[in-house]
Amino acid sequence: MNTISIEDHNALVQAAYQARGYLAEEARDAAEMCAAATWHGNNTHNALKALHLDDLFGSKAGGCTPGAEIEVIQNRFSAAETWNAHKKLGQSVAIQAFNRAIELADRHGVGIVSVDNCFHYLWGGGYVIDAAKRGYIAYTNCTSSLAEVVPFGGKSPTLGTNPHSWGLPTQDAIGFPLCVDWATSTCAMGRVQQLKREGKQLPPMAAVDHEGNPTQDPNEVAALLPFGAHKGYGLSLINELIGAFIGGSLPSHRGRALPDQNEKNSTSFFFQIIHPEAISAGNFAMGRNQTKNLKAVIENILGPGNENAILPGQLEAQAANRSKQAGGLIFSDAELSELNNLASQLGMQPLNTGSLLSQ
Amino acid sequence: MNTISIEDHNALVQAAYQARGYLAEEARDAAEMCAAATWHGNNTHNALKALHLDDLFGSKAGGCTPGAEIEVIQNRFSAAETWNAHKKLGQSVAIQAFNRAIELADRHGVGIVSVDNCFHYLWGGGYVIDAAKRGYIAYTNCTSSLAEVVPFGGKSPTLGTNPHSWGLPTQDAIGFPLCVDWATSTCAMGRVQQLKREGKQLPPMAAVDHEGNPTQDPNEVAALLPFGAHKGYGLSLINELIGAFIGGSLPSHRGRALPDQNEKNSTSFFFQIIHPEAISAGNFAMGRNQTKNLKAVIENILGPGNENAILPGQLEAQAANRSKQAGGLIFSDAELSELNNLASQLGMQPLNTGSLLSQ
Repeated sequence: MNTISIEDHNALVQAAYQARGYLAEEARDAAEMCAAATWHGNNTHNALKALHLDDLFGSKAGGCTPGAEIEVIQNRFSAAETWNAHKKLGQSVAIQAFNRAIELADRHGVGIVSVDNCFHYLWGGGYVIDAAKRGYIAYTNCTSSLAEVVPFGGKSPTLGTNPHSWGLPTQDAIGFPLCVDWATSTCAMGRVQQLKREGKQLPPMAAVDHEGNPTQDPNEVAALLPFGAHKGYGLSLINELIGAFIGGSLPSHRGRALPDQNEKNSTSFFFQIIHPEAISAGNFAMGRNQTKNLKAVIENILGPGNENAILPGQLEAQAANRSKQAGGLIFSDAELSELNNLASQLGMQPLNTGSLLSQ
Repeated sequence: MNTISIEDHNALVQAAYQARGYLAEEARDAAEMCAAATWHGNNTHNALKALHLDDLFGSKAGGCTPGAEIEVIQNRFSAAETWNAHKKLGQSVAIQAFNRAIELADRHGVGIVSVDNCFHYLWGGGYVIDAAKRGYIAYTNCTSSLAEVVPFGGKSPTLGTNPHSWGLPTQDAIGFPLCVDWATSTCAMGRVQQLKREGKQLPPMAAVDHEGNPTQDPNEVAALLPFGAHKGYGLSLINELIGAFIGGSLPSHRGRALPDQNEKNSTSFFFQIIHPEAISAGNFAMGRNQTKNLKAVIENILGPGNENAILPGQLEAQAANRSKQAGGLIFSDAELSELNNLASQLGMQPLNTGSLLSQ
């Protein structure tokens, strides 16, 4: 493994985004969210993935418009804003949307920002962890770029992997914010590719073949299944319908070339912040305050017999501690090699991995 | 099957609640929500279950206080209220909380009501379907009365079956409101009892034995497992933590006799309403309005290959149509017999099943 300073990483990623036409502040937002993913041990949504998404669906494919300006749509509601992102870079939109939702929640107790005409925001967990660290209960869902998931009882993929991400400000109680963050498919298509390379089988009820029949053979996989049967299906539908209320169009068109220029192929984002004081009734048992009550409840859940259970967000927090100890972002040799290829293409020096704390 | 008029059903259920000391309006709320469950084909959360819950945990066990008054806790936030329900009947609290959340959402776009010291509200689906029919996006979660579910990776039950319920106002688009409504356990303890009676096995990874090992034998079941492994576990934790922010105490104490009178054993409720106009960016493809866009998205999801997929809320809507055609609430012979036993205990005439439309 190799450790790279956040500064060096961000300089490289910013340069890569600016070379694609993005504004300096967009490139900065993109680099910061890539760094946040790697800092928290997420190697499926790092800088390499972000740039790959931009190739597949983004500035190179017309799905994302560098320099686009967010338009705030006027409405009569004081705690709920709607925006037209005009396909601005997803990371910039998500950062601004959560900042605005926090302002609304500071005043109203709850604030929501719904965004139309979006492009991929990379990793929902990064934003909700950040908002939770700032003391807020955060939630986001979005529609995914491609329809890869089959509705429960169906055979044809017409749903995105549609993720949900919740962040809860538990750091004063247990040392880190809880983060519940996952796609509504049993696994990702990237995982299917990985199992194919490794010659391994999928878990049961994770995917279907071209006939719509369940398969565990990664070579036969045509589409994914929702996790938890009808329950995960319901959670995936929520993103599609919230997206449809906002302005998103047909799932089968998303991320694809359009048959008609009056159609849309963009994703939709939903962001919500709740101020923890706005849901406190103030009447905690045993003289506890809200933080001590959270701590007591979590300790009760992880009590005798449950020592091996972990909390969602715990692995991310452990990875963040490893990054902190290493003094920077940790990449594998293969990842470092790809990043240095990128540096070379941009006319930059190879990344420095020598001046950091040892692991 | 037998059909009973809503009026006769409600008169009986109201009398039963009033005989337990509940106020007339509490008894009316209870009867209406029992009727709503049966109307929508839900025979696990009907009047018989509601009265059974009141026996086990409610007015007969000190968990619910007839005639209790809701206290609104003052806070500085305009779109978020917190209440102390003082163990008032859950159905009355939930009806009032959603009414208040709707008023808040009409003004602010989103409104939340968080409630401490609660007693079971029976069936979350009933409230969100009602709010959706009134045109709102509704959501509720609560902590369950008993800790019956084992955290993912653990062996001991320290989580409730903690349900989530979402209602979406899709009736103008597709004829009925979508309702995503389920517990975060793979199945309910009542289902385990039913399988035991029938001599059948549980599905895999639904329950554990006294050693904390997974079992499919209903006779060996000591506790339930979350649905969807770590994903359902995360969803269950959200209810516990929202409950802990509100004022709920240790899950292992809920619904049980308390070791200390400074402890709490009550549940917590969270209610949220979003006004659909507050999340519309107004920029729908192909000249559609919001309703037509919802319809187009849902038709796309259920397109070719997915004719056999059903939407969450569809079964409830079909049951409601059957109730409407029958002209009342449909009960099995066994259920009718239990209801008539109740009538007899209350000195009331047996229920009239003769004057309604034929099925």
